[in-house]
Amino acid sequence: MNKKTSFKNDYSEGVYPLLLDALSKTNDEQLEGYGLDKYSVQAKMIIQEKLNINNCDIHFLVGGTQTNRVFIKASLKSYESVISSESGHINVHEAGAIEDVGHKINFVKSENGKITPSDIEMIVKSHTDEHMVKPALVYISNSTELGTIYTLSEIEDIYRCCRNNGLLLYMDGARLAQALSSPFCDYKLSDIHGFFDGYYIGGTKNGLFAGEALVINNENLKKDFRYYIKQAGGLLAKGRLLGVQFYEIFRSDLYFDLAKNAVDKALALAEKLSGLGIRFKCRPETNQIFPIFSNELIKYLYEYFDFYIWESMDRDFSVARIVTSWATTEKHVDNFFTKVKGYLDEKGRQSCW
Amino acid sequence: MNKKTSFKNDYSEGVYPLLLDALSKTNDEQLEGYGLDKYSVQAKMIIQEKLNINNCDIHFLVGGTQTNRVFIKASLKSYESVISSESGHINVHEAGAIEDVGHKINFVKSENGKITPSDIEMIVKSHTDEHMVKPALVYISNSTELGTIYTLSEIEDIYRCCRNNGLLLYMDGARLAQALSSPFCDYKLSDIHGFFDGYYIGGTKNGLFAGEALVINNENLKKDFRYYIKQAGGLLAKGRLLGVQFYEIFRSDLYFDLAKNAVDKALALAEKLSGLGIRFKCRPETNQIFPIFSNELIKYLYEYFDFYIWESMDRDFSVARIVTSWATTEKHVDNFFTKVKGYLDEKGRQSCW
Amino acid sequence: MNKKTSFKNDYSEGVYPLLLDALSKTNDEQLEGYGLDKYSVQAKMIIQEKLNINNCDIHFLVGGTQTNRVFIKASLKSYESVISSESGHINVHEAGAIEDVGHKINFVKSENGKITPSDIEMIVKSHTDEHMVKPALVYISNSTELGTIYTLSEIEDIYRCCRNNGLLLYMDGARLAQALSSPFCDYKLSDIHGFFDGYYIGGTKNGLFAGEALVINNENLKKDFRYYIKQAGGLLAKGRLLGVQFYEIFRSDLYFDLAKNAVDKALALAEKLSGLGIRFKCRPETNQIFPIFSNELIKYLYEYFDFYIWESMDRDFSVARIVTSWATTEKHVDNFFTKVKGYLDEKGRQSCW
Amino acid sequence: MNKKTSFKNDYSEGVYPLLLDALSKTNDEQLEGYGLDKYSVQAKMIIQEKLNINNCDIHFLVGGTQTNRVFIKASLKSYESVISSESGHINVHEAGAIEDVGHKINFVKSENGKITPSDIEMIVKSHTDEHMVKPALVYISNSTELGTIYTLSEIEDIYRCCRNNGLLLYMDGARLAQALSSPFCDYKLSDIHGFFDGYYIGGTKNGLFAGEALVINNENLKKDFRYYIKQAGGLLAKGRLLGVQFYEIFRSDLYFDLAKNAVDKALALAEKLSGLGIRFKCRPETNQIFPIFSNELIKYLYEYFDFYIWESMDRDFSVARIVTSWATTEKHVDNFFTKVKGYLDEKGRQSCW
Repeated sequence: MNKKTSFKNDYSEGVYPLLLDALSKTNDEQLEGYGLDKYSVQAKMIIQEKLNINNCDIHFLVGGTQTNRVFIKASLKSYESVISSESGHINVHEAGAIEDVGHKINFVKSENGKITPSDIEMIVKSHTDEHMVKPALVYISNSTELGTIYTLSEIEDIYRCCRNNGLLLYMDGARLAQALSSPFCDYKLSDIHGFFDGYYIGGTKNGLFAGEALVINNENLKKDFRYYIKQAGGLLAKGRLLGVQFYEIFRSDLYFDLAKNAVDKALALAEKLSGLGIRFKCRPETNQIFPIFSNELIKYLYEYFDFYIWESMDRDFSVARIVTSWATTEKHVDNFFTKVKGYLDEKGRQSCW
Repeated sequence: MNKKTSFKNDYSEGVYPLLLDALSKTNDEQLEGYGLDKYSVQAKMIIQEKLNINNCDIHFLVGGTQTNRVFIKASLKSYESVISSESGHINVHEAGAIEDVGHKINFVKSENGKITPSDIEMIVKSHTDEHMVKPALVYISNSTELGTIYTLSEIEDIYRCCRNNGLLLYMDGARLAQALSSPFCDYKLSDIHGFFDGYYIGGTKNGLFAGEALVINNENLKKDFRYYIKQAGGLLAKGRLLGVQFYEIFRSDLYFDLAKNAVDKALALAEKLSGLGIRFKCRPETNQIFPIFSNELIKYLYEYFDFYIWESMDRDFSVARIVTSWATTEKHVDNFFTKVKGYLDEKGRQSCW
Repeated sequence: MNKKTSFKNDYSEGVYPLLLDALSKTNDEQLEGYGLDKYSVQAKMIIQEKLNINNCDIHFLVGGTQTNRVFIKASLKSYESVISSESGHINVHEAGAIEDVGHKINFVKSENGKITPSDIEMIVKSHTDEHMVKPALVYISNSTELGTIYTLSEIEDIYRCCRNNGLLLYMDGARLAQALSSPFCDYKLSDIHGFFDGYYIGGTKNGLFAGEALVINNENLKKDFRYYIKQAGGLLAKGRLLGVQFYEIFRSDLYFDLAKNAVDKALALAEKLSGLGIRFKCRPETNQIFPIFSNELIKYLYEYFDFYIWESMDRDFSVARIVTSWATTEKHVDNFFTKVKGYLDEKGRQSCW
Repeated sequence: MNKKTSFKNDYSEGVYPLLLDALSKTNDEQLEGYGLDKYSVQAKMIIQEKLNINNCDIHFLVGGTQTNRVFIKASLKSYESVISSESGHINVHEAGAIEDVGHKINFVKSENGKITPSDIEMIVKSHTDEHMVKPALVYISNSTELGTIYTLSEIEDIYRCCRNNGLLLYMDGARLAQALSSPFCDYKLSDIHGFFDGYYIGGTKNGLFAGEALVINNENLKKDFRYYIKQAGGLLAKGRLLGVQFYEIFRSDLYFDLAKNAVDKALALAEKLSGLGIRFKCRPETNQIFPIFSNELIKYLYEYFDFYIWESMDRDFSVARIVTSWATTEKHVDNFFTKVKGYLDEKGRQSCW
């Protein structure tokens, strides 16, 4: 019934077909449960090999909120807090999961979704004794909730700041593939891997049915980690569902190819929109872009497309969020651009902010 | 490499093929996330229709531990406790998930995994004031962890006991399909549905990749329930994965056909083993049976089959747990029986307890 | 050894001597434990009588953090959040106690420590679905952490806003006596009592050894409340310690007399300092005043007095926090004023901000 | 109004008068808050000196439930469990406080309230993987809830068992003074001090208004411990209340003198009752004794005394719990004995079990 193309998010489609084939091919085999099956084991090996990372533990969990929640719970003492950008997923869109496991989030304002060493130090310095929480872990998302990515030097600086202040560093990689596939990215995963006590390599938003690969580097956090996952209800009985998908997507370059398609399509659209005079909340860097449209234009576009309004700019203009995925085609991009162009041609550029 | 047939559990195989086909057919569609897709919506309707239940809320969660944990957390105040059989899944095999959400489990000993009104009343009566926890919810599993099922009158009695004592009643239905498909079962789901404040209709152990359908009858518990799921990390972004499977398995009689195969195979094997003089820890009633084997016989069988030892009887004998599934065939049963018979024919009946 | 007069807080002295006498006189009696002793019972009656409040439940707890924590835990579902001023005690100085019991604090900026209906509505409106927490309780402190008090109409407006938005309203009354004793206060406790689902009448900061009287109006929150206190470790075995003190302080006007002394002394000092050209962060209204001193002046005053620096204004000036108590005398005030005056006379008014 | 002598517990009276004097004498001093006052500091030194213990951290908390709860929370990871006797205070009489902070209690049956290395090992061995909790801390109370005490060799054996199994060892010392003052005790505190990762030296049940001195030996648990206390609402603003009392009771032998009176009086009564043919649930060893009385006798005694019935033996007999304190006199003992004797003389020995 709904024929509108959706740019609402990167999990509207199902699974990338090749992964479905892999699930189908292995379906008859009797395998160990709870992530101890051979595909899960092999997937962990191949991830380390492919990404040139090692000495880490990897666990497959079902979704991002669960992964953030379990890792942060396992990492912190009850009086310790998390430092995050105000827009951080854990601070806004996880229904208080971090507080539910007992921790305050000390957030900092940020225009582009990123935090800086000076943000971190300001938080640390203002927490001085046992009447306050004690900041203990820095949470970043990369790419961020605003589609931006951290540069190598930014990550290095945050890492050093964390080490100097005795803070753990954790990366929410729900869209890590998209960050790494951005033309603005100046590093490979192996370049930054060692900076994090833990992070996850997102699957759900890059073509899997479900699945996030949590990477743990910190030796103190490795021990007994499966207990935390089980206790949280995150240990899938048929762990093969995750193992087979991760194995398949990492045994070739598929993981990056899918992300690259998403990023390329978003940036192509961004460039076309820029050509029309459309401005953006932040520089388009990955598969989430935030053009500023007049509310009239948004109303018009809603006849043909689905997407979210991120925030209001003023009475007449709003920031839209346009998200592409592995399944977005050139045609989808052209259709969207054509509609915007057609509208502007008719209504004139006063529709640009 | 491992060619041994596994009777370890009912989640060793993948998904029932027809469900995989349904996932494949719907894969290209762009759908709403987080369980708001049309298949999830339709699946909830068809479950109510098929099972002749209504006025309830249904939520799809990923696994049993998560479902138990989320429901019990949402149901209880922090000082309230759960009454369970000692062998209850929440008491033994969920890594302390119920305590992690803050609740004591007051358990009662039970030979067959079932609890009775007098068990419940003993617990209630021994908790008298605010220095103790306050029992508030009765947890039963049906079928139980010992493969037994509750009769209609047993459930009615527990229900009345709960109402008289102001207790909620919850059923862990990880193997509810198998209970309902047992020849010993004297009710349909619709006969018992109304006795429970909540329960779940298990999918993972009956042919799905993953998925449990949590049914909520209690009006007080319906409100805002999705917040609890989201906060727990249990709201799957691609909720279609659960919705499509549940829709497919319930739009025909498949849900019961799969369970019936599992139960029939287990009971056929039990009957054959009984014929050899083998005794059981509990009466075989569903797809989990608990024959008592000599340790020597177990050692011999381990060359050909995988299964768990449930507990030790004495120096020479142990209780084995044999679990069948939708994928178990007559041939699997015959092979197992033949090996036992061959061994007993050679070694003699002193191998029977 | 330390002969400096302390203006650091209102809990530096011990107990008001008359309360000690009461403890002494009743010491030999054998009394019920856990707050069921006759003095605790009578104290609750006399509080209701004296304050002209009724239909409420009263519980005596040991300290403010405990009281806030227990009440808020008992009031909220796990996904519900608290709205507070950024400077709210629960948000800054309780070591994350509210998050430890699972709740996010959605705070609003405030110059004077107070929040407004529009603050509340902004928070409510920005929380739209189950991916976010759900604001459910408004926390105010009165007097605030900045020594200010709410007016009757401000409280009425907040109350109406809460009712319109389905929010509970809770008042941290650590310094409620001081608020009620302020010349700026335009209400009695009985005038505002009915606006709150719960609040506490602070004892620790008004002459008791320890003790806060938690008042619960909301019928839904009354039931089983002692379970929450016990579970939190807040049910004192010798509850008489609290009961006797509260009985003694409320059977006359002592509760208000003590607070009045504290407030009068602070405001007298504030007026004198104003006369010297000293400015304040907020209008002095109760027993906490926040004069802006030059850092040089602070250094000089530290030779004679103890007090905290609240925050830095710029390179040269800081906000000091001066707190008086039931034990503060005119002489203490004069000494402080004299030192400030002497310094300014010598150094000149460039020392004023 | 109530002239009956109470043997219900050891916290029916107020504070030991000398401690009240000490509070009175120091009352006017302005002191640091939150346990940083000089009396708290000196009290910690004098406890170490007097008890010949060292290298430990000491914190003063208000009550036993709070102390157990805070220490156990600080000690365990969320999936770790506590091993306790079934009658352990944490398992029965703390309203689920340990579960509230997230931990399962694996309890063992015990006739006399004590646990053994073989109990511990049985629990450890039955917890094998991440689907179950992981036992990590052994909780003992000494004296126990049944008035019994551990011998030196029993404690040594438990200690070794804990070390061998990687378990922490914690002692609830609510009545540690009474244990150490028992004629059956074969050790001093300094003999057993080193066996525990933590324990507390109880004050509330030995003459203080309130106060427990938590001793921490384990280096890993010392760091930041005040954060845990503050977060739990356990950091008393006027910490002097605890510091002064502990200082006073430990600067002489008062702590042991008070306990000795309680124990002597209970054992004297026990001996007298034995002489009348009265039997006991457990051997009387400290200030809690558990005589078995006929229900008729209990009814008769209730006219003159208050005490609790511990449990029912059969239709006609029950176990009573008689508790003495620092305030119990020879006359109290004689009165009780006389009434029992009078009753038995009249009714005959069929009243003995």
